[in-house]
Amino acid sequence: MTVLVRLAYDGTDFAGYQIQRGQNVRTVQGVIEKALASLHGAPVATACAGRTDTGVHALGQYVSFDWDHPRIPEQQFAAALNSRLPPDVRATNARFTADGFHARYSACQRHYRYYLYTSQWDLPHRRRYAWRLPDVPELSRMNAEAAQLVGTHDFSTFAARRRGEDSMTRTVTAAAFYADNDEQTLEFRISADGFLWRMVRSIVGTLVGRERDRRRGRKSTSAMSITEMLERRDRSLCGTLAPPRGLFLYDVEYP
Amino acid sequence: MTVLVRLAYDGTDFAGYQIQRGQNVRTVQGVIEKALASLHGAPVATACAGRTDTGVHALGQYVSFDWDHPRIPEQQFAAALNSRLPPDVRATNARFTADGFHARYSACQRHYRYYLYTSQWDLPHRRRYAWRLPDVPELSRMNAEAAQLVGTHDFSTFAARRRGEDSMTRTVTAAAFYADNDEQTLEFRISADGFLWRMVRSIVGTLVGRERDRRRGRKSTSAMSITEMLERRDRSLCGTLAPPRGLFLYDVEYP
Repeated sequence: MTVLVRLAYDGTDFAGYQIQRGQNVRTVQGVIEKALASLHGAPVATACAGRTDTGVHALGQYVSFDWDHPRIPEQQFAAALNSRLPPDVRATNARFTADGFHARYSACQRHYRYYLYTSQWDLPHRRRYAWRLPDVPELSRMNAEAAQLVGTHDFSTFAARRRGEDSMTRTVTAAAFYADNDEQTLEFRISADGFLWRMVRSIVGTLVGRERDRRRGRKSTSAMSITEMLERRDRSLCGTLAPPRGLFLYDVEYP
Repeated sequence: MTVLVRLAYDGTDFAGYQIQRGQNVRTVQGVIEKALASLHGAPVATACAGRTDTGVHALGQYVSFDWDHPRIPEQQFAAALNSRLPPDVRATNARFTADGFHARYSACQRHYRYYLYTSQWDLPHRRRYAWRLPDVPELSRMNAEAAQLVGTHDFSTFAARRRGEDSMTRTVTAAAFYADNDEQTLEFRISADGFLWRMVRSIVGTLVGRERDRRRGRKSTSAMSITEMLERRDRSLCGTLAPPRGLFLYDVEYP
């Protein structure tokens, strides 16, 4: 039997999702596999939907693994796991699936959200979970650019190349900023069949940087359209990476 | 000259606002007065708008103090202070006022917000800043009760008595819950000329507890109206205190 667990975590105190063999660092995968091993009495190998970087959070990460014993009812699996997890990681759901189900390969849609807020000063209660911008950006202009990302493209300009990555082509199904005026909070929502390494942070960093350049009357890359930047497949055109603290793996869809 | 500084802080790692003489604990006032003393070269005594408890946060706390040297322009005062403050406290504004202006006695309105969210499980990124409820409450019923708090009342039922407090009467000008459906977030906003010790947490704890009792078909105090509870002036009628982590001193108004 394969179990699919949905996870939420605060990435602040983790060196990313993936176990780094030989490194003495705290990772989400390490904490999950330790909890599973303590339930099972032997090591349990897991797969995840998205290998989030250091400092990146999750509201809907998914992890799959084979399971035989002890027998735990589906409804109680999340609670059993949570009893062995630290408070910065929670299993929020568990589902029993057919053998061979894989959190990464079976996923058909992934949704990320990136949170920003505008303030002259850092706000202490937001410092772990959002990126501060000094000025309120013009959303209509940023959304006109974000819309150019939608579709099937080679995202080499907006991603770091990861060893073993065979294709840089992905299909983005939605990409837009939403404002919550009262709190001066912005949210960037992006959905795709899959994401490349650092793709969301590259996109957010570039769109925010272009807006800042326009405001300050600088031309830089903002003279080139996003469509043209995509076509160039040139990573050097990409802006500064947005910081990890604003990024959440929001949810993953399975057939 | 008197300076009025607006502060934001994450109360998680503080033993409340107020300095506790003889206790070796970290307080917001302690951190502020240390920063001011290091700028001024001698101790600086401060007054604050609201003495928040351990674990309570602020987006708009205000602190006033006399200042003569060194001379720092009004526009640069917050930055000068921030350069000597830890990241969980920020000065977000500074204003030069007339001598004798007092952050506490000059305040005419105070606004608090209490954040709640509904989820079967604790969400790691909310664990410092909100109270989790297992079920979605019925806001219309809770708001019908909250409305009974508005007006000038003796709040003995909904507050702890603090030494030196001469009157338990306050005027609440607004009290209501607001929902953000997408995130399953609730926000309780309450405004008054002043607040008694633990008044907001007493009110939120009581209103949430009564809603839970109604849902479970328990009668308990929910047979008595909020108006009657107020009239009884009986602290023992009050529900369990809501935890401090959801509470923010949101803003303070001055004439």
